[in-house]
Amino acid sequence: MAAEIVNPRSDSSADQDGGAEPLDSFDPAFALHRGGKMAVQATVPVRDKDDLSLAYTPGVARVCTAIAEQPELANDYTWKSSVVAVVTDGTAVLGLGDIGPLASLPVMEGKAILFKQFGGVDAVPIALDCTDADEIVETVVRLAPSFGGVNLEDISAPRCFEIERKLQERLDIPVFHDDQHGTAVVTLAALRNAARLSGRAVGDLRAVISGAGAAGVAIARMLVRAGIGDVAVADRKGVVSADRDDLTPVKRELAGFTNRAGITGSLEDALAGADVFIGVSGGTVPEAAVASMAEGAFVFAMANPDPEVHPDVARKYAAVVATGRSDFPNQINNVLAFPGIFAGALQVRASRITEGMKLAAAEALAAVVGDDLAADYVIPSPFDERVAPAVTAAVAAAARTEGVARR
Amino acid sequence: MAAEIVNPRSDSSADQDGGAEPLDSFDPAFALHRGGKMAVQATVPVRDKDDLSLAYTPGVARVCTAIAEQPELANDYTWKSSVVAVVTDGTAVLGLGDIGPLASLPVMEGKAILFKQFGGVDAVPIALDCTDADEIVETVVRLAPSFGGVNLEDISAPRCFEIERKLQERLDIPVFHDDQHGTAVVTLAALRNAARLSGRAVGDLRAVISGAGAAGVAIARMLVRAGIGDVAVADRKGVVSADRDDLTPVKRELAGFTNRAGITGSLEDALAGADVFIGVSGGTVPEAAVASMAEGAFVFAMANPDPEVHPDVARKYAAVVATGRSDFPNQINNVLAFPGIFAGALQVRASRITEGMKLAAAEALAAVVGDDLAADYVIPSPFDERVAPAVTAAVAAAARTEGVARR
Repeated sequence: MAAEIVNPRSDSSADQDGGAEPLDSFDPAFALHRGGKMAVQATVPVRDKDDLSLAYTPGVARVCTAIAEQPELANDYTWKSSVVAVVTDGTAVLGLGDIGPLASLPVMEGKAILFKQFGGVDAVPIALDCTDADEIVETVVRLAPSFGGVNLEDISAPRCFEIERKLQERLDIPVFHDDQHGTAVVTLAALRNAARLSGRAVGDLRAVISGAGAAGVAIARMLVRAGIGDVAVADRKGVVSADRDDLTPVKRELAGFTNRAGITGSLEDALAGADVFIGVSGGTVPEAAVASMAEGAFVFAMANPDPEVHPDVARKYAAVVATGRSDFPNQINNVLAFPGIFAGALQVRASRITEGMKLAAAEALAAVVGDDLAADYVIPSPFDERVAPAVTAAVAAAARTEGVARR
Repeated sequence: MAAEIVNPRSDSSADQDGGAEPLDSFDPAFALHRGGKMAVQATVPVRDKDDLSLAYTPGVARVCTAIAEQPELANDYTWKSSVVAVVTDGTAVLGLGDIGPLASLPVMEGKAILFKQFGGVDAVPIALDCTDADEIVETVVRLAPSFGGVNLEDISAPRCFEIERKLQERLDIPVFHDDQHGTAVVTLAALRNAARLSGRAVGDLRAVISGAGAAGVAIARMLVRAGIGDVAVADRKGVVSADRDDLTPVKRELAGFTNRAGITGSLEDALAGADVFIGVSGGTVPEAAVASMAEGAFVFAMANPDPEVHPDVARKYAAVVATGRSDFPNQINNVLAFPGIFAGALQVRASRITEGMKLAAAEALAAVVGDDLAADYVIPSPFDERVAPAVTAAVAAAARTEGVARR
């Protein structure tokens, strides 16, 4: 076919690109991004009129008619059940903040290709030109017939909580805010392995989370659900506790199920004697505060690109150190979770992603480490090929157990 | 249609797919559709952490930042400028009518793979769960940052006219309702060649269009713009003329620029002595009406699967006969137009698809036939590999001439 001849992105007329090429020679990230990072491909042949008469009219009409009579057949006879919408409004992109939908697209495309590469899941970037929570909900509800799942991405807190909750109420396909739950799943997996390495029960650990945004709130919820001894969350104004009068509804809820120790004051106050530090704030933690933690502490300094405390410093005091970076050991990377979580959910056509499915994902991810467990290996590499199949299988099984599987 | 074959509910197998497999063995269209017809693929490598650091964090952040500062760079560094949203609400799907968004998905996927196969254009099916014109407009406006163009598909008249107009007003990317303009472009190309074959000027021809829906209205507009002698449009109640008091706003507009002959009465009345019949109605035309047309008439009976008059019957009276079917000569098939039209528009990043671009597409399509012109060859085959490059080049050039190209 003539696809090669007319592909618009293969146009090599360099002078028509508004002077963008210099970026490509300065920075390999630009060179790699030129023309985008993804494409659509047909998975059926369209070579001749016989092919066309099956893939398109008149044959396609019989498939449409069957779906009209029995809607669930859309999952068998279209790509719906294998494609996820990666939805953002561009308000909390990486550490860049509110850069808008257009500028968020490279991240959404990146996410889409990670879905494909690691989970075999098709994904489509949908960057929305609206930021009102109800407008986003309404828009995604209208789009939903075309997709088997919705991955919410880089939507700022606290709107992200409301948007996810309302979408989960209105849709019968998985809706998953990865910045919350993906991060929480991988963090819990690493924490479980760190505890196992130290011969300690998770229930004996007191954790402190720096950051009460999407990730911090979700990690706190997940750790409590997983039976952590206690967890305190600190925002910019200090530890979230019931006696504060400046809490948003989400933080007020957080105060209700965290911080049983009743700690007040600063992040540093909370860290004194704590067993676990989890940084998802982008702030910094002084060396003295790390030194004040309990013997054999775990420090997960996950801010990117600059960890809250440098891992070389943290290692002077802590038994296990993890970061969000690929150039240090123990990278807490969401790509360990979201491809397998969606692949498992889609495989059994789960109507939602339950707490049990997320916990199962964390268990499966932790288990991949197995007997190789060590201080610099509490979490597998994103390129460990055992990860996605293990998470997929665990999530699919959990969906059946939880009664949300539809096949 | 073979709707009888498809009775999924009578199937009693207890496999995990809800008993769908038997459909696949009854009907190759189902076998071909299993699992859908398309997939996403990464176009950059993600083999190791170095790849990941360019395609995703931290490298991607530099690309995002550049786009935030200079939004048009999104066209260079994401797939935006090569991807089209194929948007429907499922209200006018093929000849099946209002079957809803889910059941429309096989058609939208088919369209998407035709975009890819014939035009090298990536396309994503977006079937919307809403039918209110303003809601559809609002939804598509919110989605637009992710796409380089919008192909509206199978949205019923008269809402399709309003939706397209409002979207064109609000977006700076091409918005094109293929059921209107794709059909009109291919029809005009065939008509030009039929006229050339007969040695007649288009301006000397009187045409009658059966059907005043999306296709009929667009064909009438395009033929008038192309200088046809006169055109009358008939709906179910007869010829659209200014003296009728039952006209919708769109048909009233139609009455203003068609039917200069002032014909009233039925479709058959209009056909007496007419030079061209264009059927986009799904109705039937009696043999006697075809016989009453002028000597050397052109009959384009494009209803699918059943032409308004059988081509064997039409050929007894007409000099040129075309249909919408692939098993007769001269198939008027939109796939001859939309892939190249969007490929050309995207190639030069056109802000819209103008009348001049559509006329250029029709000219280029007609020209492919060249010296091989014959009564059974007034329009190329959809599988003629010269078509898409010719249409693409003509549309891109016209976009520059019309001042809507942005590179």
